[in-house]
Amino acid sequence: MVPDPLKAYLQDHRDEHLDKLKELLRFPSIANVPGDANACGPCAEWLVTHLKGLGFDARMAPTDGKPAVLGTLHETPGAPTVLLYGHYDVQPPDPLELWVSDPFEPEVRDEKLYARGASDDKGRIFAQMMAIEAWVRAGGGLPVNLTVLFEGEEEIGSPNLEPFLAAHAADLASNSAIVADSGFFAPGVPSIIYALRGLVYLELTVTGPSSDLHSGSHGGAVANPLNVLARLIAKLHDDQGRVTLDGFYDNVLPLSEAERREWEALGFDEAQYAASLGLSALTGGEAGVDVMERRWARPTLECHGIMGGYTDEGSKTVIPSKATAKLSMRLVAAQEPDRVTESLRAFVAENAPAGVTTEIRVHAGARPVQMDPDAPAMKAGLEAQEEGFGLPARMIRNGASVPIVEVFQRVLGVEPVVLGMGLPDDNTHAPNEKLDLDHLWKGSVVAAALFQRLSGVK
Amino acid sequence: MVPDPLKAYLQDHRDEHLDKLKELLRFPSIANVPGDANACGPCAEWLVTHLKGLGFDARMAPTDGKPAVLGTLHETPGAPTVLLYGHYDVQPPDPLELWVSDPFEPEVRDEKLYARGASDDKGRIFAQMMAIEAWVRAGGGLPVNLTVLFEGEEEIGSPNLEPFLAAHAADLASNSAIVADSGFFAPGVPSIIYALRGLVYLELTVTGPSSDLHSGSHGGAVANPLNVLARLIAKLHDDQGRVTLDGFYDNVLPLSEAERREWEALGFDEAQYAASLGLSALTGGEAGVDVMERRWARPTLECHGIMGGYTDEGSKTVIPSKATAKLSMRLVAAQEPDRVTESLRAFVAENAPAGVTTEIRVHAGARPVQMDPDAPAMKAGLEAQEEGFGLPARMIRNGASVPIVEVFQRVLGVEPVVLGMGLPDDNTHAPNEKLDLDHLWKGSVVAAALFQRLSGVK
Repeated sequence: MVPDPLKAYLQDHRDEHLDKLKELLRFPSIANVPGDANACGPCAEWLVTHLKGLGFDARMAPTDGKPAVLGTLHETPGAPTVLLYGHYDVQPPDPLELWVSDPFEPEVRDEKLYARGASDDKGRIFAQMMAIEAWVRAGGGLPVNLTVLFEGEEEIGSPNLEPFLAAHAADLASNSAIVADSGFFAPGVPSIIYALRGLVYLELTVTGPSSDLHSGSHGGAVANPLNVLARLIAKLHDDQGRVTLDGFYDNVLPLSEAERREWEALGFDEAQYAASLGLSALTGGEAGVDVMERRWARPTLECHGIMGGYTDEGSKTVIPSKATAKLSMRLVAAQEPDRVTESLRAFVAENAPAGVTTEIRVHAGARPVQMDPDAPAMKAGLEAQEEGFGLPARMIRNGASVPIVEVFQRVLGVEPVVLGMGLPDDNTHAPNEKLDLDHLWKGSVVAAALFQRLSGVK
Repeated sequence: MVPDPLKAYLQDHRDEHLDKLKELLRFPSIANVPGDANACGPCAEWLVTHLKGLGFDARMAPTDGKPAVLGTLHETPGAPTVLLYGHYDVQPPDPLELWVSDPFEPEVRDEKLYARGASDDKGRIFAQMMAIEAWVRAGGGLPVNLTVLFEGEEEIGSPNLEPFLAAHAADLASNSAIVADSGFFAPGVPSIIYALRGLVYLELTVTGPSSDLHSGSHGGAVANPLNVLARLIAKLHDDQGRVTLDGFYDNVLPLSEAERREWEALGFDEAQYAASLGLSALTGGEAGVDVMERRWARPTLECHGIMGGYTDEGSKTVIPSKATAKLSMRLVAAQEPDRVTESLRAFVAENAPAGVTTEIRVHAGARPVQMDPDAPAMKAGLEAQEEGFGLPARMIRNGASVPIVEVFQRVLGVEPVVLGMGLPDDNTHAPNEKLDLDHLWKGSVVAAALFQRLSGVK
């Protein structure tokens, strides 16, 4: 149990912590802006300074992209080492016009903190730092030796993380690890994630005529790259919502009966979920498959945007020279990103009509993850969640991709505890992202409890 | 034949005319910019001033959109009245980065004048004004009574033209009409258009969840509006490139054998056409139908742009709340715009999946046109073209839409001579639009000859 002086410390410093978190949220640290034209560097510097203030040996660690932040506080001889991971980069804020307040000027309304990154992931890493501070200032020091790694490219698929970890493997060696980048299954249901979907993100470009053409003069003669692209995207699913790529489902692990039973206990309410999204029906994914299975244990193929032609106000009768779609596939264990990418290449080569050329540019991806839900660190995570929130915690999957988890497994040989205090309605990746302040306060107690419990996991 | 003093006048005033045309081209008179935030008003004012300088009674005539320009020079008692139509609005210039020189700062390179509108349609209406000036200054006055109408909304489908013509029908009454808004069939082949395709331009919006969603958390559960839209667009064509709308081809008039023979004489070279567009194959439109028939005598359905989701650099894994496609259908006689629009509405209602809503917003359209190629005014047009260019002229169709033509037929009861000196490689509606100066000079002689010949058509 977390000692009372720590709880009192956290209780007494809420105003100060909220002010500090707001400072962190003011950096528009969007990783997908190329070059230095963003706030990733300054945001990383802020974190280094903050960690140093807590007694860490901390520094900015360059990568081939945005810098990471590395810190160590190893002052507990004989205690196990814990690696703590989070990310300080955030999703782009657009569409800006839908935000009630400025995404980079945090505002508290109705006990919720609104800002881009408030939930994903700055709020979560700040809760960890609050817990560290409480142990250092009011608990006589951390019960574990802690190594901190804050990444700056999670929202663009962590393209430089794996080589970074491989190069720093010795520095990052640990007995257990925490990935502070997730959330509750539902309000009132804290949870630990034991499986995540992987991701392949790519751009598919169809090129037709050498310049934009007038659809009156040339329409009917030339293949329109936008129509061709729409046709290719449409053909990637059959009428039952299944992805048509050759061998796409070959390696998908079936869901066990034990998992199905465990999930039933979660009390997922399909109608309530649909209503929360403003939907009358949940018609995505494969027909005849349960919604929870479609979200957690089945792969998908989504279109995220289509460029080309005319998209401003009014009308323009153009046949564009080229059109590009941003597409992604969410993968589940044991699908291989390289294999599905090759299958997509073959599909496009086979299905694109004569008279156009195609190009596929693959962004960073992530392998799917499945971990042992019965491992001691996982149990420690469940217990810490129950202690902090006073609620029973559950082992769950998540449909999103947290590349670090699979890379931790494969490169560092450690299976991390994936947790966080986000809520499903936090609007991560959407306008008006928020963090419930109650979750921030309790999340810091969870973090304090988890350090304590991981001191017994070697 | 055009009197020699007129030819000498046109020859002697080339520098001055080029400077004046450049003035006209500097106005960025883009009709699809709403409100007054464009140069349509100032451009119309410039035309009024120029016409007054030629002796016209001229004025700006308000419409519910951009103003029109109206002018009369009726000083030839007993002569027939001719109505001259052109448009001063231009297509948007984007993508700007592909222009060699500023689209609104005209530049002559290699005896070609580069600017947005140089060919379509400012160059063509200016050639008409050069001919008027020659008759007035060097010919003792025009051989006809001339009414001029320059529109400011042709490039957005002339949404306010029909009520305008109906309201001004008495002022616009004429024995014949000229629509100066077309071009050569090919280099060396001047032509008169006797048939045009119509147009229905619309936006199709698919709305799914009430806000943008994270594709990891929700992908597979909810229908993605972009994927739904792609599927709808794809389904609008079958595997043979035919539009699948119910009854779409019902009213399409078949091509006559006489027309086929006439077209063969044009010597259209399919391979050369494909090469000029940078294409290895002409795979648009209906399989098994000749390319010229597909361009001129068959309807199409094209996508011009898709909005929604994330289209900036990098990756964002968003399922957008809504997605919108700009679509148009080119129609041929005797298809009815309203009927195909209704058919599209029925198609979308039938094919959109549960869990999304759809909306169709129709922009202005145009009916298809078919005129009598043997009418006296048409013959006058052919002869004037031959006189100006010294080349045999042909009766042709065109796949584009010039709404004024059908409206002239229906509202004013006059079938216009549709001609112009554009060339297929003028890049109208595309970057680096140009006008060959040789065509400008000869086009003004054609205009002078046509006024003379129409003085005999009552």
